[in-house]
Amino acid sequence: MYKLICTNCNEPYDTETATGRCTSCDEPLELEEISDGRIAEEFPMEKGIFNRYASFFPFLSLDETLSLGEGATPLVHIQNGAGNDRGSKIYIKNEGMNPTWSFKDRGTLSGVLHAKAMGYKKIGTVSTGNMAASVAAYAARAGLQATILVKEEMSEEKIGPIGIYGPRLIRVKGNYRELYSESIRLGRENEIYFINSDAPYRVEGYKTTSFEIFEQLGMKVPDYVIVPTSAGGNFRGIEKGFRELYLSGISNKMPTFVASQAKGCNPIVRAFETGSDQVQQLSKFGTIAHAIENPYPPSGNQVLRLIRKNGGIAVDIDEDDIIKYQRVLADSGIFVQPASATSLAAADKLVREGKIQPDSQVVCIATASGLKFTESLKHHTIQVESCNIEDLEKILG
Amino acid sequence: MYKLICTNCNEPYDTETATGRCTSCDEPLELEEISDGRIAEEFPMEKGIFNRYASFFPFLSLDETLSLGEGATPLVHIQNGAGNDRGSKIYIKNEGMNPTWSFKDRGTLSGVLHAKAMGYKKIGTVSTGNMAASVAAYAARAGLQATILVKEEMSEEKIGPIGIYGPRLIRVKGNYRELYSESIRLGRENEIYFINSDAPYRVEGYKTTSFEIFEQLGMKVPDYVIVPTSAGGNFRGIEKGFRELYLSGISNKMPTFVASQAKGCNPIVRAFETGSDQVQQLSKFGTIAHAIENPYPPSGNQVLRLIRKNGGIAVDIDEDDIIKYQRVLADSGIFVQPASATSLAAADKLVREGKIQPDSQVVCIATASGLKFTESLKHHTIQVESCNIEDLEKILG
Repeated sequence: MYKLICTNCNEPYDTETATGRCTSCDEPLELEEISDGRIAEEFPMEKGIFNRYASFFPFLSLDETLSLGEGATPLVHIQNGAGNDRGSKIYIKNEGMNPTWSFKDRGTLSGVLHAKAMGYKKIGTVSTGNMAASVAAYAARAGLQATILVKEEMSEEKIGPIGIYGPRLIRVKGNYRELYSESIRLGRENEIYFINSDAPYRVEGYKTTSFEIFEQLGMKVPDYVIVPTSAGGNFRGIEKGFRELYLSGISNKMPTFVASQAKGCNPIVRAFETGSDQVQQLSKFGTIAHAIENPYPPSGNQVLRLIRKNGGIAVDIDEDDIIKYQRVLADSGIFVQPASATSLAAADKLVREGKIQPDSQVVCIATASGLKFTESLKHHTIQVESCNIEDLEKILG
Repeated sequence: MYKLICTNCNEPYDTETATGRCTSCDEPLELEEISDGRIAEEFPMEKGIFNRYASFFPFLSLDETLSLGEGATPLVHIQNGAGNDRGSKIYIKNEGMNPTWSFKDRGTLSGVLHAKAMGYKKIGTVSTGNMAASVAAYAARAGLQATILVKEEMSEEKIGPIGIYGPRLIRVKGNYRELYSESIRLGRENEIYFINSDAPYRVEGYKTTSFEIFEQLGMKVPDYVIVPTSAGGNFRGIEKGFRELYLSGISNKMPTFVASQAKGCNPIVRAFETGSDQVQQLSKFGTIAHAIENPYPPSGNQVLRLIRKNGGIAVDIDEDDIIKYQRVLADSGIFVQPASATSLAAADKLVREGKIQPDSQVVCIATASGLKFTESLKHHTIQVESCNIEDLEKILG
């Protein structure tokens, strides 16, 4: 019934057979828009965001035994920090409170539901870390075998928290974008459903982020949503969520979207700034924000199209500011991984530059927990004193 | 209006002046029981569990700007794993999805609310790790200065994720129980409110866990609740939550409570098994479950009293089984720190021993995220393959 549609040329594809990309223009496909969605008020949010918004997922059959309680993350109003007077309009959507501590879990669940519906016994992914852990966990939950392909140089710190779920875990040497395509091709041959970063059914899951933000703001759409952007899957899903709320007449406007990247790996920002409609592969890149270190994002061109649709912006953050804003967020009680700090850094930068009005309502997506990559803490000054219990009186006095 | 009551002798104390312990029997105090609580249906759970159950916290004024979105954690039904047929009755309450990834956040918020209400500008805690991060984060959020006292030998891995929030962080050499008392004494002298493990207002916050479980089971009380137990604060709070639901006529029974400990540090289990009503300080102890490595728990005697009130059990888990059940949980998609694995291990053990009937409904509290202590992963076999992208076809085929 529902079709996959090319995000570029609108060519329709069958959901069962497509590889997730258009065979003529090689652009990503997305599920047909929902324009008649409704909120199922009988399911409060704590009973599962996918239940409450089930009419936005008519192509999936919801199976709660596959859920780990993803979503329903807090939207935290940030009042102080950074020495900036932000008025009262900046909110952090803290995705680090998901079952595997990143936003990936939303999309992994919808991907797993589709894989199960199609009869797959094996799933897989290609990941810099967060998605690897998420797919491994949900595969374990669903009793599916997981094949996880990671970069050769992935930090040792990240390997254990993926491996603990028992997947087949393979470090692969080679071009990351090529690995993305190869995995989908080999997956189809070997009956492994690769739920990669911008797979259409993964993107669908990210719509739940928008539904929650809308409700958490009192059934209101924020002026801006800023998304740390790598492959582009989360950006696309969040945009589609707001788009379908709007098309369904539930909301009355669209937010303006901002993609934040690290200056050390900024292919989308470069294309945006030069006015190009094609993201070019970077040959040299490097950033501490490994979770968004994708030199050739498979949904990059579509992110550009979505940004430009309604006056959005792509902005990059230098390494010092990534570290600085990791601390700024911690000063408000939220410890994020470096990639997640780019959205608040972008908000402050755009307000400073006058590109966002200071009284705008801005939601910054914080994509994952700071515990994901504690190596980044070596860039921070952390003072630790030592004493004997007998000296405590003097020290505290 | 409300009084603190000694959990042992029922002596009442004023809430403003007491140190949290009875001056005659040195047992912990608790807030007067609520027997007229009601659920504020107008606040759905996602608007904050403290709002929905505000009538159970009449002594606190709720200030949402201090919240980081604690609570509303999933209750995950575990169907497979461990090679055991568990019927369909075991649930994991996954507290690793809190703002600082442990259950502590619930109690920290209520403690901070009380500290603010009393006019304190400084708060503190004594902690093996989880509570340290939690108090540091909520202090940052509230604009309070935090003093965090940790064990001299605390793992380096845990220091950074506490220090990032900017507290005064001190490693203290000396007896841990003595440090607990000294911190409260010195805190009073120096205007620092120490929200330690079983501080009365911290214990209050843990009641929210019970309220959520009750709702998540469809307004039903489970047969058993198993709590990994260290100082005893979480155990006490969860018991009190179910007690107040019962006294208020909202529920119709009490669960039976089980305290799970590590065999390497099991002071409560020892007292339980010998029939003693006094927990003795252990001189030799050691376990990988550092989060429950408390050789002389300040609320130990009260935990014993509560266990015995309705046929409860204290059970200890050996080191091999802690590691084994960490993996069992991961095989269901939930990665916990070692201490958290003791509750499911206890459930399986008690079912095997016939002490819990297999058709009972059992809730196991999983206290914190596995990312808290990834050093434990070295005890697990984690296989990682390596290959070139060209070899992938052969490897996956």
